[in-house]
Amino acid sequence: MSFERLWAELLPVGRSDQGGYRRFSWTPADLDGRAWFADTARGIGLDVETDRNGNQWAWWGSGGDAVVTGSHLDSVPDGGAFDGPLGVVSSLAAVAALRSRGVAPARPVAVVNFVEEEGARFGVPCLGSRLLTGAIAPSRARELRDSDGVSWADAMTDADLDATGLGADPARLASIGTFVELHVEQGRGLVESGAAVGVASAIWPHGRWRFEFAGEANHAGTTRLADRRDPMLTFAATVLGAREQAAQAGALATFGRVAVEPNGTNAIASLVRAWLDSRAPDERSLARVVEAVTSLAAERGDRDGVKVTVTAESETPVVEFTASLRDELAWLVGRDDGPAPILPTGAGHDAGVLSAHVPTAMLFVRNPTGVSHAPGEYAGPDDCLAGVEALTTVLAHLATR
Amino acid sequence: MSFERLWAELLPVGRSDQGGYRRFSWTPADLDGRAWFADTARGIGLDVETDRNGNQWAWWGSGGDAVVTGSHLDSVPDGGAFDGPLGVVSSLAAVAALRSRGVAPARPVAVVNFVEEEGARFGVPCLGSRLLTGAIAPSRARELRDSDGVSWADAMTDADLDATGLGADPARLASIGTFVELHVEQGRGLVESGAAVGVASAIWPHGRWRFEFAGEANHAGTTRLADRRDPMLTFAATVLGAREQAAQAGALATFGRVAVEPNGTNAIASLVRAWLDSRAPDERSLARVVEAVTSLAAERGDRDGVKVTVTAESETPVVEFTASLRDELAWLVGRDDGPAPILPTGAGHDAGVLSAHVPTAMLFVRNPTGVSHAPGEYAGPDDCLAGVEALTTVLAHLATR
Repeated sequence: MSFERLWAELLPVGRSDQGGYRRFSWTPADLDGRAWFADTARGIGLDVETDRNGNQWAWWGSGGDAVVTGSHLDSVPDGGAFDGPLGVVSSLAAVAALRSRGVAPARPVAVVNFVEEEGARFGVPCLGSRLLTGAIAPSRARELRDSDGVSWADAMTDADLDATGLGADPARLASIGTFVELHVEQGRGLVESGAAVGVASAIWPHGRWRFEFAGEANHAGTTRLADRRDPMLTFAATVLGAREQAAQAGALATFGRVAVEPNGTNAIASLVRAWLDSRAPDERSLARVVEAVTSLAAERGDRDGVKVTVTAESETPVVEFTASLRDELAWLVGRDDGPAPILPTGAGHDAGVLSAHVPTAMLFVRNPTGVSHAPGEYAGPDDCLAGVEALTTVLAHLATR
Repeated sequence: MSFERLWAELLPVGRSDQGGYRRFSWTPADLDGRAWFADTARGIGLDVETDRNGNQWAWWGSGGDAVVTGSHLDSVPDGGAFDGPLGVVSSLAAVAALRSRGVAPARPVAVVNFVEEEGARFGVPCLGSRLLTGAIAPSRARELRDSDGVSWADAMTDADLDATGLGADPARLASIGTFVELHVEQGRGLVESGAAVGVASAIWPHGRWRFEFAGEANHAGTTRLADRRDPMLTFAATVLGAREQAAQAGALATFGRVAVEPNGTNAIASLVRAWLDSRAPDERSLARVVEAVTSLAAERGDRDGVKVTVTAESETPVVEFTASLRDELAWLVGRDDGPAPILPTGAGHDAGVLSAHVPTAMLFVRNPTGVSHAPGEYAGPDDCLAGVEALTTVLAHLATR
């Protein structure tokens, strides 16, 4: 069960003709990935189960104080091959390596595949880990809907899972002694450090805000400019304003998702919905950016006769990973010349959700271009193997102490 | 066959729960409308046929120099009840009235229902009349595709029509002696004139241009602002620039339709496609606006690392309706105090396409709010009846002279 073989098996699942991935929760591609996870874990000799929230677990041993590793298999629309799957495949390969080396763990070891990490289909990222930890109410999760109006509960039920037990799972959470997630880096920090593997220090606070710009549909060819209430103008000014605010604050702000109604070439839009993704080094900066963007959208909306409504869909506070574990791992996976680089990230992860409850760490694998959430996302074969080796070392260290 | 009864029969066809209409060519709603047209025309005693391009014709008599009236039944997304259907229903009601009054026409009279006038499904407005007159090549029309990739030819074939004979129909065109289209007004010109019915002077030159803003997809949470090639910024600047250019030129410019790839909340867009609808009182002004918007998009694209491509999807020159017919009709449908108002419009119509080949006129019916291409589009019952009466007068005059 080499990394290369597992990686090659998973690579075609959910890949489009254009090379990007569309592995959305509970779709056929996702179900294929989940079946692959279960079969592969069983092939390694692990006991596979699905928890009440749809996350998959593969156990070596049982009981408390477990060493858990893993990531997710779902993707953003037209995402890359590595974000998520690299962690799952590396985890399975590392556990297989430990078993073939005859390591006798003193603690249970498990690999987890968290569901809906990207929030690409139902809008809330890290949904599986949020449900597990009680960070989202099951009543809200149940009613999350995809763009076709299908609810989370219905989609899960259609996948032959029981959606009636959604929600916090304190016994399972308490059984986790340590959580480690390996992930492809999504910037070029390790390129600059010249290291194949690094350790996460923190996750920037971040969130998603839905902006609704409500104007009035009308004929594009006959309505005088002065008579218009065109929400596209307000949206456009908000996009440009968000970029300015982020630049001033040393933060990030992105509008990457837009839905227009009625979306006709010769009709002034009645409604533009757009989602702001924003992140900053600290919570105060993030709040300032979002407040400033909200204000400027409302002011421009007043000029355009457009009503602006802003709804926070998710807000994640800063995550500082467990400092002692972080430093221990940096030395453990470092080279002769010292510890591995320690670096922050702007991306959210299930590890960030778990870190509020469990000693948690993340390993990053070098990304030569820094590209992520796109088909060009990449990590070289040697770096991937270095990641597997680092994770194997970490698991052996944690499971046998 | 009163106007009121015909109107009530057609009103539910293709209406959504929210009150707007989605009558897209060859969809079930459109097929229902076409079946209604054929049944109703036969009920009046007319001979119904479908031409090689999918337009429906209902004949009273046969031969050349026909007096043809009609409009279309398809709608924009979430359009109103009147744009198109008011002309078709009024035409049928007017012909029924002529027949019941025992008028003996000296020329054949026909009612036409043109297909895909809005271009809502396949992107090219007035497709049925363009095909009839040879204004679009059949090879291009055949391959026009809807947002699901279905071609015009396949959609037409699926509707049990033969799509192998698409293209110019000179014999049919030559049989039309005069064409008159009645349409709800799409502005408030008649409100200001205080008249229920008016006559069209001209259609502003107009067109649709597809803007493609190509950047690079990347992770919204980890990609530094300086490393981004975000096409949403270029698009936003273009939206605001287009409005400014239109205002300066006394023209109209609208971006009402947008498609984003991959359209994920936490992904910088790789591609934004957006359609510019622009119209101006004269062709020189229109060309200036489009050139200016194209230039500013390209300049901003250079700053953003975004490639901008602009493709004209349709360009329609100014239409000046036949002056003698226009003036004749204005006197004919005017009141005691003088001729009906004569007014231009920014909206394209099949009458505009036909006017290059056949003496053509349009009647407008007052629209109290000016709203069009939206569920709130309206004309009062008395004004609708005044429109039917005006059209009946016009047909009687033209058909018996």
